Amino acid sequence: MGVAAEGAVESVVVVHNVAKRHNVGTLARSAAAFGVSEVVVVGRRDFNSFGSHGSTSHLRFRHLSSLPLARRYLKEERDYDICGVEIVDGAMPVTDHPFRKSTAFLLGNEGTGLSERECEICDFFVYIPQYGGGTASLNVTVAASIVLHHFGVWAGFPERVREGNKFVVAEKPSKQARRNYCAESIEAIVEERKHRKENARMDIFEENGSNESQVTSALEAMFVG
Amino acid sequence: MGVAAEGAVESVVVVHNVAKRHNVGTLARSAAAFGVSEVVVVGRRDFNSFGSHGSTSHLRFRHLSSLPLARRYLKEERDYDICGVEIVDGAMPVTDHPFRKSTAFLLGNEGTGLSERECEICDFFVYIPQYGGGTASLNVTVAASIVLHHFGVWAGFPERVREGNKFVVAEKPSKQARRNYCAESIEAIVEERKHRKENARMDIFEENGSNESQVTSALEAMFVG
Repeated sequence: MGVAAEGAVESVVVVHNVAKRHNVGTLARSAAAFGVSEVVVVGRRDFNSFGSHGSTSHLRFRHLSSLPLARRYLKEERDYDICGVEIVDGAMPVTDHPFRKSTAFLLGNEGTGLSERECEICDFFVYIPQYGGGTASLNVTVAASIVLHHFGVWAGFPERVREGNKFVVAEKPSKQARRNYCAESIEAIVEERKHRKENARMDIFEENGSNESQVTSALEAMFVG
Repeated sequence: MGVAAEGAVESVVVVHNVAKRHNVGTLARSAAAFGVSEVVVVGRRDFNSFGSHGSTSHLRFRHLSSLPLARRYLKEERDYDICGVEIVDGAMPVTDHPFRKSTAFLLGNEGTGLSERECEICDFFVYIPQYGGGTASLNVTVAASIVLHHFGVWAGFPERVREGNKFVVAEKPSKQARRNYCAESIEAIVEERKHRKENARMDIFEENGSNESQVTSALEAMFVG
């Protein structure tokens, strides 16, 4: 533990073209629990936040319209490793903690896993060893949570204070979005806008009631990208 | 790894009075992935198996009608430790692997956590360290999955064979329930029947459609307790 230099290491979650059933809410809750710095939403920016238990307001969200732009942002602007969570040839067990520095974790959609295009932007892959023959794979949020948990152990993130039988929740940040804004290169912004325009018709809302839409709208306001 | 003697150690999941929102399906999928031997359902025996991805047919289910009966079964007949997954005073970080032998993991309901009565039947407690201030606790299925994963690492369960980007799923067992049946003491059976009668009116079905009820009925047939 504490392998990484103190404060120097961050984890980021990348979700690409979120499917409806892919519950970003629960994922956000785990991300918040395990000290994730930013959630990068690529492609479709709408998602269902049910299950977040308010944790989305404590996370920084960034939207990028394409995988190449996501890679450019993560590699060139952030100097992160991009780690795919997928069982592929050469994937390393996450229990071996094959991390070197700040890492962005790219998650596949439930069912199909990471696509070829998604795999292409990854530097390496981790998988979670299984011991029983009753299922071919884990729920994607469960898998992501286990990987983020192990990254936190490897990085030696300081443990959050507990009170009673809960961890202490921080004060709700008041409109930190702009303060956290990371200036992008002009070139990236131009390309980003182009892609965003092209993708506009993909921006559909969850159809399970007005409440859900309000939540999505509230989340929209939080994006920094 | 491989701390425990080979083949000598098992993990069991205990769920008590399953609430509707507590998704046993995803939990069953993780249980199957991490080599859990049995799912012990205490009290209400109906549950929602959505998210199991067929893994429930590979798991052994047992129903016991009360917490004291569950403790008697797990301690006297099985000689297991009972480990509560809860942030309480004296709870140990699961990353320290504070296990000694076969262990049954008792999970709290989402939101309220383990009740006083549930805590009473536990021998010890583990919790999952958190590093961020954005949430007071994890989703219960996520928490359970991380704990079961760590038990498998500690026990040195052999890793399941992979093929392509999935773990190989075993042949569907054909009606193993009776073969796996573990004979109970006469005393336990009598008390069990008494409790079951008392609890009969609590046995309600999930109300989200007829399909759900069919699933529940199919699962009913699998119980060995």
